[in-house]
Amino acid sequence: MGQVERLRCVSCGDEYESDELNYCCPDCGPRRGTLEVIYDYEQLTDQLSKSDFSGKPESIDRYLPLLPVKHQDDLPDLRVGGTPLYSLAHLTDSVDRLWLKDDSPNPTASYKDRASAMVIGAAREKDISTLACASTGNAASSLAGLSASTDMDTFIFVPRRTPAAKVAQLLVYGAHVFSVFGSYDEAYDLCLEAVDRYGWYNRSAAINPYLVEGKKTGALELADQLNWDVPDKVLVSVGDGSIISGLCKGFLELKRIGLIARVPEVVGVQSAGANPIERSFREYSGDEVHIEDQGAETIADSIAVGKPRDIVKAVKYVHQVDGDFVTVSDEEIQTSIVELAQRTGVFAEPAGAVPYAGFKSLESQNYFDPSEEVALFVTGSGLKDTKAARDAISQNPMEVEPDMAQLDNSLSDHGLI
Amino acid sequence: MGQVERLRCVSCGDEYESDELNYCCPDCGPRRGTLEVIYDYEQLTDQLSKSDFSGKPESIDRYLPLLPVKHQDDLPDLRVGGTPLYSLAHLTDSVDRLWLKDDSPNPTASYKDRASAMVIGAAREKDISTLACASTGNAASSLAGLSASTDMDTFIFVPRRTPAAKVAQLLVYGAHVFSVFGSYDEAYDLCLEAVDRYGWYNRSAAINPYLVEGKKTGALELADQLNWDVPDKVLVSVGDGSIISGLCKGFLELKRIGLIARVPEVVGVQSAGANPIERSFREYSGDEVHIEDQGAETIADSIAVGKPRDIVKAVKYVHQVDGDFVTVSDEEIQTSIVELAQRTGVFAEPAGAVPYAGFKSLESQNYFDPSEEVALFVTGSGLKDTKAARDAISQNPMEVEPDMAQLDNSLSDHGLI
Repeated sequence: MGQVERLRCVSCGDEYESDELNYCCPDCGPRRGTLEVIYDYEQLTDQLSKSDFSGKPESIDRYLPLLPVKHQDDLPDLRVGGTPLYSLAHLTDSVDRLWLKDDSPNPTASYKDRASAMVIGAAREKDISTLACASTGNAASSLAGLSASTDMDTFIFVPRRTPAAKVAQLLVYGAHVFSVFGSYDEAYDLCLEAVDRYGWYNRSAAINPYLVEGKKTGALELADQLNWDVPDKVLVSVGDGSIISGLCKGFLELKRIGLIARVPEVVGVQSAGANPIERSFREYSGDEVHIEDQGAETIADSIAVGKPRDIVKAVKYVHQVDGDFVTVSDEEIQTSIVELAQRTGVFAEPAGAVPYAGFKSLESQNYFDPSEEVALFVTGSGLKDTKAARDAISQNPMEVEPDMAQLDNSLSDHGLI
Repeated sequence: MGQVERLRCVSCGDEYESDELNYCCPDCGPRRGTLEVIYDYEQLTDQLSKSDFSGKPESIDRYLPLLPVKHQDDLPDLRVGGTPLYSLAHLTDSVDRLWLKDDSPNPTASYKDRASAMVIGAAREKDISTLACASTGNAASSLAGLSASTDMDTFIFVPRRTPAAKVAQLLVYGAHVFSVFGSYDEAYDLCLEAVDRYGWYNRSAAINPYLVEGKKTGALELADQLNWDVPDKVLVSVGDGSIISGLCKGFLELKRIGLIARVPEVVGVQSAGANPIERSFREYSGDEVHIEDQGAETIADSIAVGKPRDIVKAVKYVHQVDGDFVTVSDEEIQTSIVELAQRTGVFAEPAGAVPYAGFKSLESQNYFDPSEEVALFVTGSGLKDTKAARDAISQNPMEVEPDMAQLDNSLSDHGLI
């Protein structure tokens, strides 16, 4: 398994050989016992320098030395990562620089492709040819899409009330889709059991330690694109807690092996209707992470998570990087979808617009120092959820007959000429 | 205007200074009199070599010396082009190499961004700050999205029956949207009149000569990504005829300035229900292009064009590169959406899957030589039209209770274990 040295339980700290366990610490269980991938950082420090990354393909393949996959050929052929970084200097005077990392140009139009690619690579190195995932959203379509580019088989478990359009996308990619007459949690547990029984490889949220390795590539890429001079703060939306854990881990590893001089403060943005990780973070003092699940009610379906699977990792990592959390309302998310699209041309799904909403909220609280640089991650394309965009807009098109005099009047009435 | 030397009428051949006309030849009118951008090819031959393109950004910006825009700053900030090229060696034995150029990772998820970027650049160099476009589809959303990243204003004219979701996308980007109580052609004509009256800049299909300049970047990029060793045949879907004209022009220019050794045969693929350009091409003998409009009925909405605006250019260019046309049925398009997604992981909108349908059809006629290399262009993302994907799939998800014994039976019934 690539450069992986050890797997370490995020709760008890016990370490395992990388081929010893596939998923979780047997003592702490699937919720608290998620594993971290540990590398030989001394060796990496000796071996790697900034110049090793230049002139390589613009994709996650470029970061292979820091990933748990040995051969580039084991990653899917589709181009994952290498997404654009935009300067939003015109949007604000509150900070010195504002960056937008837009992950919607990934193959299935979300950040999740980074994690799915890593799971496919790991499966190949473990000689497993069948993948499975319980999810209704971006994780499932990402796994189905990327595995379609390989010769692997994919089983997806969705709860019964999953919208038909999302199911259709999974079927188009050729996944074997099971509609489970039950909740997401029941689909998750059925997938867990099936994986165990049939020897498939599980990509369900948080349980697979290589997911976070894929998710850290956003941090590596951001640092690389900024010539290894990272921003002061990085904002990202938080649902299960895996992406934010990946970003923190990525920055910490870059600092540890000497490629960046400091670690950005990573700020998680949650929806006010689904903020269990923020609440847990507020009371965290360095001991055990408090887990208290809740209902989840938000228009940002990708982060509508009341029972976050990577809460322990997320709370600990954000604490470690001196980061923070902020919550935003559904109304702020809707405003942000529209404002982001209109001011940057980047059309984000609701969860993708959440960091911008968080930025606006923190900006209004004078949270930032004007000398700071801040980066926002857009984790999914607005084309994933055009209904949310439609709901976010109050305007209607102006109506005219095909007649120049009418158009003239209409333009004038609307103050447009 | 950048490196532009002259504008030449595609029908009568009259030439104009680049600042003399904005749209069409006054003698031949808007349908036959579309203009071509002519450069100083001798100077370009002297000045440019292959190495001038390496190490530049992976976007259309890299081809600035061959584009009608002088300064990179005049192009939108969003990353247009630089899209991935995939090898589909595993899909066929009929040809030596099969390539897929996937343009769905563009900012608004279609090939049209290449043309919109060019129009925005040209408008800036002409000091025009307001853009307009009549369209219901990718052209409109592309213009609205890219201009949102600038300080330009955009007016979009859509026929009344445009689906609400598409209108919503335009409004999200902040375009001023007019719903015209009439047909697409009436909206097109109203836009034409408005542009003339208010001094806006028109991005409606075919009329603006810089559109084809943007559309040729797909050819430049393909050649560049293949290290200037172009395929024997290139397949692309055809609606108005602008993209195929752009591809032909791009290859012809590369050949003319010595960057490639030969020009690929460009093969246009039309839907059987909307194939006026194919029909005109069949009877073309080098004289006047015969124009006979027709109704258009196909599930591939992006090429559902019965009155193609760039028919003269398309027929002449395809003739010039010794290319060809082929038509495919809606059924073949549906099959291709699914087969392409399942075998490559690239989820295309119907028109994006059309070249693959054309390839399959020609393959079954033994059209290709086994020693040939062929490239297919996917011009739009499947997320643009998830309904078409849903309609293309016959399978349903398998239904189970959250129960391992039931799952076991279901897997067994479906022959999956």
